[in-house]
Amino acid sequence: MSSASPHPNDYPELTAELMATGRDFHTRGWSLATSSNYSVVVHRDPLRLLLTGSGFDKGRLTPAQFVIVDGDGKRLDDAQPKPSAETRLHTVLANIAGAGSVLHTHSVWATVLSERHASAGVLELAGYEMIKAFTGITTHEDRVRIAIVPNTQDIEALALQLEGRLRAGDPNLRHGFLMAGHGLYTWGKDIPEARRHIEACEFLFEVYARKYSTIS
Amino acid sequence: MSSASPHPNDYPELTAELMATGRDFHTRGWSLATSSNYSVVVHRDPLRLLLTGSGFDKGRLTPAQFVIVDGDGKRLDDAQPKPSAETRLHTVLANIAGAGSVLHTHSVWATVLSERHASAGVLELAGYEMIKAFTGITTHEDRVRIAIVPNTQDIEALALQLEGRLRAGDPNLRHGFLMAGHGLYTWGKDIPEARRHIEACEFLFEVYARKYSTIS
Amino acid sequence: MSSASPHPNDYPELTAELMATGRDFHTRGWSLATSSNYSVVVHRDPLRLLLTGSGFDKGRLTPAQFVIVDGDGKRLDDAQPKPSAETRLHTVLANIAGAGSVLHTHSVWATVLSERHASAGVLELAGYEMIKAFTGITTHEDRVRIAIVPNTQDIEALALQLEGRLRAGDPNLRHGFLMAGHGLYTWGKDIPEARRHIEACEFLFEVYARKYSTIS
Amino acid sequence: MSSASPHPNDYPELTAELMATGRDFHTRGWSLATSSNYSVVVHRDPLRLLLTGSGFDKGRLTPAQFVIVDGDGKRLDDAQPKPSAETRLHTVLANIAGAGSVLHTHSVWATVLSERHASAGVLELAGYEMIKAFTGITTHEDRVRIAIVPNTQDIEALALQLEGRLRAGDPNLRHGFLMAGHGLYTWGKDIPEARRHIEACEFLFEVYARKYSTIS
Repeated sequence: MSSASPHPNDYPELTAELMATGRDFHTRGWSLATSSNYSVVVHRDPLRLLLTGSGFDKGRLTPAQFVIVDGDGKRLDDAQPKPSAETRLHTVLANIAGAGSVLHTHSVWATVLSERHASAGVLELAGYEMIKAFTGITTHEDRVRIAIVPNTQDIEALALQLEGRLRAGDPNLRHGFLMAGHGLYTWGKDIPEARRHIEACEFLFEVYARKYSTIS
Repeated sequence: MSSASPHPNDYPELTAELMATGRDFHTRGWSLATSSNYSVVVHRDPLRLLLTGSGFDKGRLTPAQFVIVDGDGKRLDDAQPKPSAETRLHTVLANIAGAGSVLHTHSVWATVLSERHASAGVLELAGYEMIKAFTGITTHEDRVRIAIVPNTQDIEALALQLEGRLRAGDPNLRHGFLMAGHGLYTWGKDIPEARRHIEACEFLFEVYARKYSTIS
Repeated sequence: MSSASPHPNDYPELTAELMATGRDFHTRGWSLATSSNYSVVVHRDPLRLLLTGSGFDKGRLTPAQFVIVDGDGKRLDDAQPKPSAETRLHTVLANIAGAGSVLHTHSVWATVLSERHASAGVLELAGYEMIKAFTGITTHEDRVRIAIVPNTQDIEALALQLEGRLRAGDPNLRHGFLMAGHGLYTWGKDIPEARRHIEACEFLFEVYARKYSTIS
Repeated sequence: MSSASPHPNDYPELTAELMATGRDFHTRGWSLATSSNYSVVVHRDPLRLLLTGSGFDKGRLTPAQFVIVDGDGKRLDDAQPKPSAETRLHTVLANIAGAGSVLHTHSVWATVLSERHASAGVLELAGYEMIKAFTGITTHEDRVRIAIVPNTQDIEALALQLEGRLRAGDPNLRHGFLMAGHGLYTWGKDIPEARRHIEACEFLFEVYARKYSTIS
């Protein structure tokens, strides 16, 4: 099998790592009701991603529920599961943002905050030690800006819009973005870095939501 | 043993799946204190349901704690556990709504929201990506309407009322209903679909409860 | 070994059940920081209780961390761990309320509500299906009244006060009581019934706390 | 190998205990996104600490992710992982406060409360039974005062400031301190005592945050 036409079974460690990620995120309530999708780059030139198939329970993923897609988000083998409708967001992030792994989750806090700040188009996280968990941030005095885009079912249009903003070096797209009323996309050079970014975002979302709801 | 007189032991995979469902829901706090009941259709014509018996800890279900009931909600064998007092709601949903599995849970958010919206008789979930987890919903711009009925100990009367509304195609009864101060009923063609609906409802209930409690 | 002088090792199933209870309650945050104590009656006439020793992590209890006490709350064998300072509350409940098992927990919601309602001396739980989890309650239209007493380090005085109220049939002491800023005591005929009561109380405490904090 | 130049592999039980601590704290959300660091004293005169290395996922620590440091917080062997940037806080607490184990966590409630009370420079915990979990506190009528210091990236300056306050017997530094917008440091004579202090702090932080957000 050539490297340009790989099969999920070729990557038992990466599928196991994404399965463990799914169990953890499902337990935490970030990937309920078959929501979310996770990917990891397994080849560059041409680009190949190992991705969760569409519609599976993320708390109980099996190796047969993964699919390999190309740089356009198309599966190479129709015998593999159907890729998520949002696959093109993964390939844009892998292609343009240089992501080695992309994790997309649906948490309660991300949903609540993405709606509340939707009109601003950005959620700024600043002043907390936890922002140092984002690659490239070395002090709590720095700031992390998470873009918020309207939710849409036209993923192709969103992918093109994000591609343009990423190519232009949009500072609000360095670490992740929220789709309003939908969920969070973050990424990293590998699965552990992408997980660290998800955990940091979710922690900070909860801090921001609670700090305004619990003032004495 | 004829298919019209089955025994819980005939369905080891389905009992195992409902036991796993109970462990997960108990851990999440949706089935505490022996509350909740779960069923799956094991035969049609005549209708037979595999159902959790009354009064058992849902976090530690055993195969001996299940019972087979007929289309009227009566157990076929008195040596099996007593069925839940709410069994007739399961049989109505299997008979009229075509449910293959019915899951009933008692969560904190369902209890709080069912009381708050009781006078409206419905809770409308709209504008969130998570509503796509409900079968038949394909865009976040659609809406899911969950009927709210008053709590009652007269389950037979409630079963008849629901039967009438379901036969009339009540649009608020397509996905589930809440009993005020009591809990949630949802269903699906099989256990995984019913679980997906429970998880989507609980996620959205928490979003609705929190979005109004955390406005800055 | 006579039945009047038993040893924790004589009751491997009961110690295992209390150890599992501790792991669950610690995970839920109801028994953090070595707080809480649990007991089960192992003999009547004379009364003997199997009880958690003082100061142990309830999430990691071992068989050697249990002690047998008599009807006055004194250990029979000084080689066994020191009983909790609150042991006399367990023996009063076993003696006067007829408890077969007593569970005491420290949850956040119990702490918050016990303070808020302390001046009323009682927290009334009514109108929720979950109150049917309390033995003797058959409809949600009934009510469960949980006494609230001030916290004290004089456990002997509190034990005598509770003994008097229980002998007088105080209706606020049928299901459990709260010590303000401290925690919850409930009981049952055996460990499963006491667990059911703890879970029902904690569920309802959270409902009461959240229903007033999340009104839109 | 002399006792002054030990290796993490010399302490399999202590590394296992800190690994289990990490799994528990990560599950609870107190050590997400590779945040937190944990240590235990393995030798005095000269001082040697077994410490978590920098940048590892605390939910999945391995024995190879620990490092031995000396009394100045320097690793003895460059083949071992890089120690945390905050190592000097651990050595000051071991040297001056007599800590046998130091645990540092990043929880949502600690972050929210540390900001809210930052200008006071202290958070006072009083009137709750749970304060008895702190060593030396024997009644709920006592009080525990947790110092709050501004967050900083100049750890050496903070270490010197804490050293001075500890030597002067500052009553706000008997049990732990918060770094504003950052997290909690507590300690104990050994790992179990330090864990008890972390759990007691986190419980009380949640009580304080919720009591003001849920008033009816």
